[in-house]
Amino acid sequence: MRIPILKLHKYLLISVQVELDDQTALQFQEDLLNKIHQEGSIGVVIDLTSVEMIDSYIAKVLGDVVEMSNLMGAKVVLTGIQPAVAITLIDMGIMLNEVPTALDLEQGLEKLQQELEG
Amino acid sequence: MRIPILKLHKYLLISVQVELDDQTALQFQEDLLNKIHQEGSIGVVIDLTSVEMIDSYIAKVLGDVVEMSNLMGAKVVLTGIQPAVAITLIDMGIMLNEVPTALDLEQGLEKLQQELEG
Repeated sequence: MRIPILKLHKYLLISVQVELDDQTALQFQEDLLNKIHQEGSIGVVIDLTSVEMIDSYIAKVLGDVVEMSNLMGAKVVLTGIQPAVAITLIDMGIMLNEVPTALDLEQGLEKLQQELEG
Repeated sequence: MRIPILKLHKYLLISVQVELDDQTALQFQEDLLNKIHQEGSIGVVIDLTSVEMIDSYIAKVLGDVVEMSNLMGAKVVLTGIQPAVAITLIDMGIMLNEVPTALDLEQGLEKLQQELEG
């Protein structure tokens, strides 16, 4: 199954509302990078509000997808990170220091606009 | 499986990117109405760009969900209706005369804003 990616102007919006298994996460990574390329997107908001837990592999894939998107020229904002997800990310040493985060999709979009303007 | 519903300000955005089987469609109907209630949304954009074909049952569910949302006070805009989907909707007598439509998600959101202001 694939995670839908919505295109809104120059941004892509993703709300992850399924449990992320390994294959879904990898498929998402591939889909997102292709979509950034296809649409020439300059910003991405990935909303993780509905994701309550992730394992080390998914954490790595997520960290990777952020760096890959940045490499391609699209700024990524992560939103709605739950406590257990935050713990896993830090425990795994996935450093998202430079990744802007926000509480929800709206604030994520605002942050993205600020980042891209500032 | 469930179709993700994104909340953006007072609107809900849905991009249907899976084949709609009966159960998915019904689940979507229920999820959408609950979400409208929960979030107090005044507008909904349902993007059907990736839906290439629907059967009569799905057409009916879609028509119903538009009317139900309207009843609840949320305006629905359908976007990206493909030729085969348009044919099925009309063949089935699903009258979407009063449902605003648009080409894609961006234009759907604009239309929604016009409808709600106008």
